[in-house]
Amino acid sequence: MAEREHTITVVPRYCETDQAGVVHHSVYPIWFEMGRTEWLRAAGVAYSQLENEGVYFVVFQLTIKYHRPAYYDEPLDLTTTCTKVSSARVEHAYRLCRRPTGLLLAEGATVLACVDAAGRPRRVPDFLHETP
Amino acid sequence: MAEREHTITVVPRYCETDQAGVVHHSVYPIWFEMGRTEWLRAAGVAYSQLENEGVYFVVFQLTIKYHRPAYYDEPLDLTTTCTKVSSARVEHAYRLCRRPTGLLLAEGATVLACVDAAGRPRRVPDFLHETP
Amino acid sequence: MAEREHTITVVPRYCETDQAGVVHHSVYPIWFEMGRTEWLRAAGVAYSQLENEGVYFVVFQLTIKYHRPAYYDEPLDLTTTCTKVSSARVEHAYRLCRRPTGLLLAEGATVLACVDAAGRPRRVPDFLHETP
Amino acid sequence: MAEREHTITVVPRYCETDQAGVVHHSVYPIWFEMGRTEWLRAAGVAYSQLENEGVYFVVFQLTIKYHRPAYYDEPLDLTTTCTKVSSARVEHAYRLCRRPTGLLLAEGATVLACVDAAGRPRRVPDFLHETP
Repeated sequence: MAEREHTITVVPRYCETDQAGVVHHSVYPIWFEMGRTEWLRAAGVAYSQLENEGVYFVVFQLTIKYHRPAYYDEPLDLTTTCTKVSSARVEHAYRLCRRPTGLLLAEGATVLACVDAAGRPRRVPDFLHETP
Repeated sequence: MAEREHTITVVPRYCETDQAGVVHHSVYPIWFEMGRTEWLRAAGVAYSQLENEGVYFVVFQLTIKYHRPAYYDEPLDLTTTCTKVSSARVEHAYRLCRRPTGLLLAEGATVLACVDAAGRPRRVPDFLHETP
Repeated sequence: MAEREHTITVVPRYCETDQAGVVHHSVYPIWFEMGRTEWLRAAGVAYSQLENEGVYFVVFQLTIKYHRPAYYDEPLDLTTTCTKVSSARVEHAYRLCRRPTGLLLAEGATVLACVDAAGRPRRVPDFLHETP
Repeated sequence: MAEREHTITVVPRYCETDQAGVVHHSVYPIWFEMGRTEWLRAAGVAYSQLENEGVYFVVFQLTIKYHRPAYYDEPLDLTTTCTKVSSARVEHAYRLCRRPTGLLLAEGATVLACVDAAGRPRRVPDFLHETP
């Protein structure tokens, strides 16, 4: 099975801030997706390769708790953890922290459904399933 | 108190689609914010006016369930319901439906915290509180 | 030929602002695309219908002059004018104005190339060509 | 004066693609801004620091030529060149290339105006001016 946990750095872009002077809350799902992508790549597979093979993951459920604002151009550590793999779904949890201090800024979770090119449910690829 | 429920139309923009041919899941929080804004305006207050008076609402929690994909340029009905107002927070629920059929595409919920310009908690303005 | 000129209203979304307190400059191309889409619809054709028929327009050139900032939630008039149609390309010009005063905020221009689903050049559909 | 030229890598995010299967054209100005930011940082100054000192750069003019599409998750080299510094403005040129081959995908140019926190024109900081 893929490594359970993977951390990437994200640096808020200027256009990701809003007039309240903080990163807009709609940006976090984009970062989470980036975290999942790199978690998958660390497991040896690029998502683009999965798509080429007709395997798509669609977000079925998303939850975010925003504890503290994130600011323009500050380096953040985003840790993505795979929390569950079933025959049809993959679940992840996310922790976004300010880098120098490790202060928790936000937490999240997603449930992905595995579908084919036509959007029909299909089995999660074997390499993502837990093995002893 | 403000009207409990308000419906707006949103039409997915081309740039809001992704290469899977559907609206990207990070767009829904933006639409929900638009729904809240118009719900508030229907209650007689523009959010920009609140900000001018030093009243800010920040998203503290967000949940979305994606049932079916939304497509480019199809008119959608987004219904925003205020589900709870406390001294420090305002909660909303959202239902996104395909217009001609009323088919439910997604559901969501947010919890907003009321803060001042410095980000410190402050009391939710009186006009948002329930009155008999 | 299609009507030369078409005006729509755009209202800046909160997430379209940045921490300088104005609409981020990367949003204007999105609005211009919306202007083109409605210009096309006013001419009787939805862009989604063209795509279904294998006709795609891709942006080949974009120019924008930003004269004055646009602000959150202010209604803006965006006028899209078709300035030229050739066998392979369609050109538009854009004027973005503050509604109550008509003050010019930005001007732009695009050159679109007509391609098929595989990205190969194809002839601009007849209905877009000028007729006497 | 700052180094004339600086190259960064950008990797298209999934949400930056559209249903035509390519990166949406409105994303390029965002990448150009990232290129300028890193060009500035390579010159020893973070843009956030400039803002703290009351120095803002606003985009006054933008031009982009899109030669070939960019695709999801492919590494791109973006080279930002400072082409002119005057008392009130700074100009840059951009070249976006596919990494393995160096194939040119897009070219662009921006003219920035230097303003203070109130949006009034101010002199471009000395460190950006050419010195023999």
